[in-house]
Amino acid sequence: MRIERVSNTVSLKRNIESGTEEQQKVVLSIISDVRENGDSALTFYTEKFDGVTLNDFKVGIAEIKEAYAKIDESLIQTIHEAANNIRDFHSRQVKQSWIDLKNDGTILGQKITPLDAVGVYVPGGKAAYPSSVLMNVIPAQVAGVERIVMVTPPDRDGKIPAGVLVAADAVGVDEIYKVGGAQAIAALAYGTETIKGVDKIVGPGNIYVALAKREVFGHVAIDMIAGPSEIVVLADDTAYANEIAADLLSQAEHDERAASILVTHSIRLAEEVSQEVDRQLQLLPRREIAEASISEFGFIYVSKDIEESVRVVNELAPEHLEILTQEPMELVGKIKHAGAIFVGRYSTEPVGDYFAGPNHVLPTNGTARFSSPLNVDDFTKKSSIISYSKQALLDNGAKIAEFARLEGLDAHAIAIEERLKSM
Amino acid sequence: MRIERVSNTVSLKRNIESGTEEQQKVVLSIISDVRENGDSALTFYTEKFDGVTLNDFKVGIAEIKEAYAKIDESLIQTIHEAANNIRDFHSRQVKQSWIDLKNDGTILGQKITPLDAVGVYVPGGKAAYPSSVLMNVIPAQVAGVERIVMVTPPDRDGKIPAGVLVAADAVGVDEIYKVGGAQAIAALAYGTETIKGVDKIVGPGNIYVALAKREVFGHVAIDMIAGPSEIVVLADDTAYANEIAADLLSQAEHDERAASILVTHSIRLAEEVSQEVDRQLQLLPRREIAEASISEFGFIYVSKDIEESVRVVNELAPEHLEILTQEPMELVGKIKHAGAIFVGRYSTEPVGDYFAGPNHVLPTNGTARFSSPLNVDDFTKKSSIISYSKQALLDNGAKIAEFARLEGLDAHAIAIEERLKSM
Repeated sequence: MRIERVSNTVSLKRNIESGTEEQQKVVLSIISDVRENGDSALTFYTEKFDGVTLNDFKVGIAEIKEAYAKIDESLIQTIHEAANNIRDFHSRQVKQSWIDLKNDGTILGQKITPLDAVGVYVPGGKAAYPSSVLMNVIPAQVAGVERIVMVTPPDRDGKIPAGVLVAADAVGVDEIYKVGGAQAIAALAYGTETIKGVDKIVGPGNIYVALAKREVFGHVAIDMIAGPSEIVVLADDTAYANEIAADLLSQAEHDERAASILVTHSIRLAEEVSQEVDRQLQLLPRREIAEASISEFGFIYVSKDIEESVRVVNELAPEHLEILTQEPMELVGKIKHAGAIFVGRYSTEPVGDYFAGPNHVLPTNGTARFSSPLNVDDFTKKSSIISYSKQALLDNGAKIAEFARLEGLDAHAIAIEERLKSM
Repeated sequence: MRIERVSNTVSLKRNIESGTEEQQKVVLSIISDVRENGDSALTFYTEKFDGVTLNDFKVGIAEIKEAYAKIDESLIQTIHEAANNIRDFHSRQVKQSWIDLKNDGTILGQKITPLDAVGVYVPGGKAAYPSSVLMNVIPAQVAGVERIVMVTPPDRDGKIPAGVLVAADAVGVDEIYKVGGAQAIAALAYGTETIKGVDKIVGPGNIYVALAKREVFGHVAIDMIAGPSEIVVLADDTAYANEIAADLLSQAEHDERAASILVTHSIRLAEEVSQEVDRQLQLLPRREIAEASISEFGFIYVSKDIEESVRVVNELAPEHLEILTQEPMELVGKIKHAGAIFVGRYSTEPVGDYFAGPNHVLPTNGTARFSSPLNVDDFTKKSSIISYSKQALLDNGAKIAEFARLEGLDAHAIAIEERLKSM
């Protein structure tokens, strides 16, 4: 794995995949077809893209039972335990509606309300992760969303991976449709005869799913468009090279465009990790993917001191950050931009990916500068409450009317004056 | 003003303005020009669209002083008072970072961090509202954003409206550039020699601004794309027709595409409001705009009872809702979707537009189903904190590794096993 001195222009060096013009046209035509023809368009595109003819998109109880038979009992237990941890962490995020009661009788406040209906997209094939079902569904449930709909593409036999179905059932999702791609996003946004529309769509997908989400954004809410994943490890010479190497590789095995980066001021550690990565790489089942990722997007940056390492981390604004230094918790306050911060030796990224409780849906590719992990707030909205008192209107009405007239909005002033004249 | 019985398909009946293909092309080419040529592209487009040649985009102290001379002292006082109210309300929204300390030594938490830099777009000409400056800037300041940049197009003399400059100065914005349109959005997103890039762009604008915001979304964060404004009044026969009419018209004078709707089960009130709207309309300076809005998007819906009125309100999901009934506060709990809820007779919408404290930047056109008023959270982001203990890894490591292998991610399992083997 290559080692470089920190430069002034450290970046993840990846562009956001924005899709070709051709792909955009395909997505636009699928969306308008689904809006116009509903279920029959879904049937058509499922035949075309997934190679299977479905008479009924909805997953039934028999399929759920079949899925359970394929998964070990101990794993089902782990899924439940992970779900409990995730539910516990997200429950602590729940916000209350609040009011501020003024002396003059005015009441101002903020009402928090869950969204009515949310759609969760789960990718098909090898990227069908049971853990993603938990991470996307549970925050919506904790927020109080009444209707949660899952969509995921079927394979050529019309099936969905067993792990995904078990995870969905474990958390009580009972509305699951076997439909994927841009057609699924269109159905969630605009509704069909079978699939009632939702207010927000979350979950990752391929480029067609991403383009479709971008297109329906505004008509419904969406989460961020996820890019490829990344990890940055910030370490000093107290860290263990074999553990850092394993962590870097666990990111690299995801995707050829994943980025794995170590930032350290220890040249000895840099060299040891480089060798360890090369050694461990040979042993991985997903070696080809990990090797491509490490060779294109893997870097070990050597800084002059820990302050410079922190500066580089903040410039990268990584999705995942591990801090492996002598006093890791003391550095957390200096981290301005990171999706999730893993503190200390025992906080290897996979404990957060699966089990600890915080969400694994995180802002990628530098968007941690302005975005957050998926959380309960993402499934609620606020309404302002303004209950102005008679006294407050008497005291402030004339001033407000003057302000409105400054902006040339006389009818605004008149709305106040119509009250004042009768008071 | 027309009166109709409530039907099953009540809606605001407006489409989101998505721009022509020609407009999209123009915006794309402006953005790529600004990315490539920086300030010189800004100069070029400012000459082309605003008709003025500027050597320096930055607003200086002399211009601020000049602006103060044009605004009445009492109004400056009102702007400060409004700013204080807005600051007070938004200060109550500030969230603290928090941690959860587990028995086994694990620490989980959420770190709240303000964004580094935010750009506020202020439209030019007649839509240049000082109140919008307060409403967009103050929440960012309360969140702790260190750098707030304002951009607004100059007029043909290279000037900015005095009220806008005074409002900006009153809240301490000291980085203001005279540049507007898609070129301003591009500069904020990607930076130029003069204007350093920001992390999030907020504020309304014309169709070119909206298209440019949509285009840079993902590279930076944006607020919602604002549509035309609307008010819904929910009233029973205790309400005053002249006051309701004035409130409907204060919305209608904004924009020909604004929507003003009364929902009531009182036929008497419906008829009186209809007549009052027609009467008051004649007296308005902005009569032409208001008349066009009322005739196309103005409705009085007569329901069979107050429950049906509430159902209609939730279907409309209005930006502004006024509740003018005998016990208005008792209905607030039934309102699921509304940007701002104005409760009772003295809470006419303009008190919220200017002065009370809650934000006037609100979700329009039904997006209150899933969006919130602009608020402090919009200018912060969260980072998860995961500090797993040795004990927790010993207790759970094997389970987590098994879960990772279910998903085919061996390197994830190995990252845990590398720790376990040395423990």
